[in-house]
Amino acid sequence: MKIGILGSGVTAQTIGSKLVQLGHDVMLGSRDPAKPESVVWAKKEGHNALYGTFRNAAEFGEILFNCTKGSASLDALTMAGAENLKGKILIDTSNPLDRSAEVWKLTVCNTDSLGEQIQRAFPEARVVKTLNTVNANVMVEPLKLIERTDIFVSGNDIEAKATVVMILRDWFGWKSIIDLGDIATARGPEMYLLLWYNLRKTLPAQRFNIKIVTA
Amino acid sequence: MKIGILGSGVTAQTIGSKLVQLGHDVMLGSRDPAKPESVVWAKKEGHNALYGTFRNAAEFGEILFNCTKGSASLDALTMAGAENLKGKILIDTSNPLDRSAEVWKLTVCNTDSLGEQIQRAFPEARVVKTLNTVNANVMVEPLKLIERTDIFVSGNDIEAKATVVMILRDWFGWKSIIDLGDIATARGPEMYLLLWYNLRKTLPAQRFNIKIVTA
Repeated sequence: MKIGILGSGVTAQTIGSKLVQLGHDVMLGSRDPAKPESVVWAKKEGHNALYGTFRNAAEFGEILFNCTKGSASLDALTMAGAENLKGKILIDTSNPLDRSAEVWKLTVCNTDSLGEQIQRAFPEARVVKTLNTVNANVMVEPLKLIERTDIFVSGNDIEAKATVVMILRDWFGWKSIIDLGDIATARGPEMYLLLWYNLRKTLPAQRFNIKIVTA
Repeated sequence: MKIGILGSGVTAQTIGSKLVQLGHDVMLGSRDPAKPESVVWAKKEGHNALYGTFRNAAEFGEILFNCTKGSASLDALTMAGAENLKGKILIDTSNPLDRSAEVWKLTVCNTDSLGEQIQRAFPEARVVKTLNTVNANVMVEPLKLIERTDIFVSGNDIEAKATVVMILRDWFGWKSIIDLGDIATARGPEMYLLLWYNLRKTLPAQRFNIKIVTA
């Protein structure tokens, strides 16, 4: 499948490499049409992948991943072009983090979320929020954690969510996927990031996730 | 030990009953000196417990629990009287939830928390935020969940936190207690409440908690 990834950082590259391994055609997109990190990544031995602008990647992909920083996501998607997002599944892994201060905070929360902002700005994209609650390695290798953990999906489009659940399960290996509801439920997983941040500073390992345990 | 509990609702009663079972002397406090729920609770067979005003409970307790609603906590503590909180461990289980709208939201978050507000308002109290991430039954019976799960503590006073860790472990049965840091880290567990709320609506069970899983 042709997959466009917006972003060129660790998350974009980690998801991109996993998709390449699975045999998909992958293009990383960024502001710069030949961003050095993307070029190096695309030309890695065995990758044979593509790179280009946000617009190139969005045009290319049948399914799109937003792996840009939350603070840059709306701009990146605007550069990608609403017409290139139209009707497509847009898997939003980003977090609205402001890391400029010593203590992280969110740029949007509580009564709104970045997932909702993206869906409102691009009403014809089929936005599914997921994977934002774990680091990049865990996103594509959840089974390297010592136990089954949980991942969440939020989105308005039922069919898009079903496809994303398939991707999470069959491509990435997630065994427990919880559909929280519409895109407004992205507030929960996004606001969890401050606890994630607390834990990241406290735990010995950087790779971790939560498992929901019932009675 | 003499323990004062601010509040008369499910959380106050559930914690109160557990402490009574453990042999402690417990007083529930509320605005009304003889709130019917508190009177019924205190006179339950075998309880032989006490009830009174917020001030009575705060005067009585060597250790205090804040089990009031988040929206009422600062008022309740003001009525309890700063002089009755001075030097005492104040275990804050409350959440700053606004349940008035269809979708829950927090009344404070992101750059502040209710835990911090309480600590600032009562600088001589030794505030420890904990237990706010689970429902009342799980607070005092964590081992009824099918696996070990995690609970968090946040607070500025190291000795107060050590005592609270002892209470959580030896009195309530928590096996995994994570010290997140100072009271500002209460933002994480408080903001987690929106994910908790999503999960409460999604899961078949109302009793659940999260377990941190590493690689």
